[in-house]
Amino acid sequence: MNTLIVGAAGMIGQKLANRLTADGRIGEQTLTALVLADVIKPPEPTPANTLDTTCTACDLTQSGIAEQLVASEPHLIFHLAAIVSGEAEANFEKGYEINLDGTRALLEAIRARHEATGYKPTVIFTSSIAVYGAPFPPVIDDEFHLTPLTSYGTQKAICELLLADYNRRGIVNGIGLRLPTICIRPGKPNKAASGFFSNILREPINGQTAVLPVDDTVRHWFASPRAAINFLIHAAGLPRNTVGPRCNMNLPGLSVTVAQQLQSLERVVGSDALKLVRHQPDDSIRAIVCNWPESFNAQRAEALGFIAERSFDDIIRVYLEDDLVRSDQQTK
Amino acid sequence: MNTLIVGAAGMIGQKLANRLTADGRIGEQTLTALVLADVIKPPEPTPANTLDTTCTACDLTQSGIAEQLVASEPHLIFHLAAIVSGEAEANFEKGYEINLDGTRALLEAIRARHEATGYKPTVIFTSSIAVYGAPFPPVIDDEFHLTPLTSYGTQKAICELLLADYNRRGIVNGIGLRLPTICIRPGKPNKAASGFFSNILREPINGQTAVLPVDDTVRHWFASPRAAINFLIHAAGLPRNTVGPRCNMNLPGLSVTVAQQLQSLERVVGSDALKLVRHQPDDSIRAIVCNWPESFNAQRAEALGFIAERSFDDIIRVYLEDDLVRSDQQTK
Repeated sequence: MNTLIVGAAGMIGQKLANRLTADGRIGEQTLTALVLADVIKPPEPTPANTLDTTCTACDLTQSGIAEQLVASEPHLIFHLAAIVSGEAEANFEKGYEINLDGTRALLEAIRARHEATGYKPTVIFTSSIAVYGAPFPPVIDDEFHLTPLTSYGTQKAICELLLADYNRRGIVNGIGLRLPTICIRPGKPNKAASGFFSNILREPINGQTAVLPVDDTVRHWFASPRAAINFLIHAAGLPRNTVGPRCNMNLPGLSVTVAQQLQSLERVVGSDALKLVRHQPDDSIRAIVCNWPESFNAQRAEALGFIAERSFDDIIRVYLEDDLVRSDQQTK
Repeated sequence: MNTLIVGAAGMIGQKLANRLTADGRIGEQTLTALVLADVIKPPEPTPANTLDTTCTACDLTQSGIAEQLVASEPHLIFHLAAIVSGEAEANFEKGYEINLDGTRALLEAIRARHEATGYKPTVIFTSSIAVYGAPFPPVIDDEFHLTPLTSYGTQKAICELLLADYNRRGIVNGIGLRLPTICIRPGKPNKAASGFFSNILREPINGQTAVLPVDDTVRHWFASPRAAINFLIHAAGLPRNTVGPRCNMNLPGLSVTVAQQLQSLERVVGSDALKLVRHQPDDSIRAIVCNWPESFNAQRAEALGFIAERSFDDIIRVYLEDDLVRSDQQTK
């Protein structure tokens, strides 16, 4: 199986490429070639492997690029490419260009080949819980409407609709996955409003101080990077036509408060770590976070076999196992 | 108040232009100029009036046209332009070009002026209950998700998301209205799958036979053309910032079965009319119609003062009052 990852230089993209390289297969299907594409050249997957791998720097929004990427008719496409929420909010045009027009260019390039040759790839698209906007019920179910309160969430919701229409028309076998907030993100603290959810764990684990800008009663929806990769691979391995026309879905995750995050930190890493977290309220971050979803009932994805962590202690252990020794490398 | 109607040559557009011309105002606001735009030149509103009216043939999807339409900075824009469901399904590219790219061109032209001059018009956008796709609960509430099963519904849902984002960013004061199925549509029978809902009433009223292609237990969601115009004008007259970020909404309507439609026909017009309706099942139409919504709880729009008919007898009377004498003219 010939596979393309668009957005392969990001955190999820790199982990996915490493995992595919290590596994060499998805379910019953053996991987043959792997193309890793992003605006900056993605790193070679580690550990090195015999899988025929190509790393390419290219911009999906430039004319002809999407056509080049699908010219070899990859069976499986992971479309992860996007600029993040903060950037899409700060730069209106860039957000729509990359997050919407880029996705549309990819789908249109697939449609052109579909019409020419009958090509119909599986397309796994990473959406986000940012497609939701407050007010919410305490637990969001699979049929709650999408009313994003950011341009990023808007762009993701639009791409979901496009994916579903191309899926319904038989042009792609599409699945859109609304990833929970990924925690613990490896690497350095970043300025994303959601960054603190990872910072308050990762930094103390690494002996550094971290700032908590909200009350510890704030509740949010999490899955580990490892769970995210499992979601992508599970989606890619589902038999075609399993999902049907409602091809975009919420995923399992864990709804915990900041206090529960910190209790897990103490249990798994020790009480010294806790002392490195300083509570320093930031009203601007509080105002953003209060519009975020707290919990989901991801019944449908669970029935399809998607699995996330069942305790926040496990989420911390995943970081210790997968990322701790490599944290220096990933900070670049 | 300077007003632009995009898509002014259609059934709703013509009725809206006539009504605005007759009223000369919306709420407290006096109308000054009226620009009627469509791909074919819209007819002059009737009855003739002193309102400064311009009828123009132009294609929103052509470069520079959206910019021309907003160059005079109309305070109020009704965006009704779209190709219909059947055509958007048959012609993928044309559907996306007109129904999505056309809307985006209009919003982008507004954004350009907004950034240059602070321009911020009220934009009333006609969406559709086609944004919903089965399976449904028996009654759809204001928070049910949009999972369209046509490209037309997909395009309308995407435009809703765009409108909400431009609204949230303060570029427009936007309101999106998911019109119920309009019944009784004046004019000749058309080939839309939903056409029979009007045909089985209008044709017998006019002494003609009509075909009913589904069982009379089929239930659907209706409002009259007059109610649709009232929705548009009510939305345009709402004080700014009434609606908030969830600016797209379901509207009140009437949930009735075909049997109830025919009972109303008998009550209002007489039993002879009924004899002109021939039941001739059509499986392809039945298959489409079973994916359509049956009923809504449009609580939010009702709280905002939107009003539809409360009995199907009234819907028939609206046709008799507004369209019967003019049915020959409108069939062109």
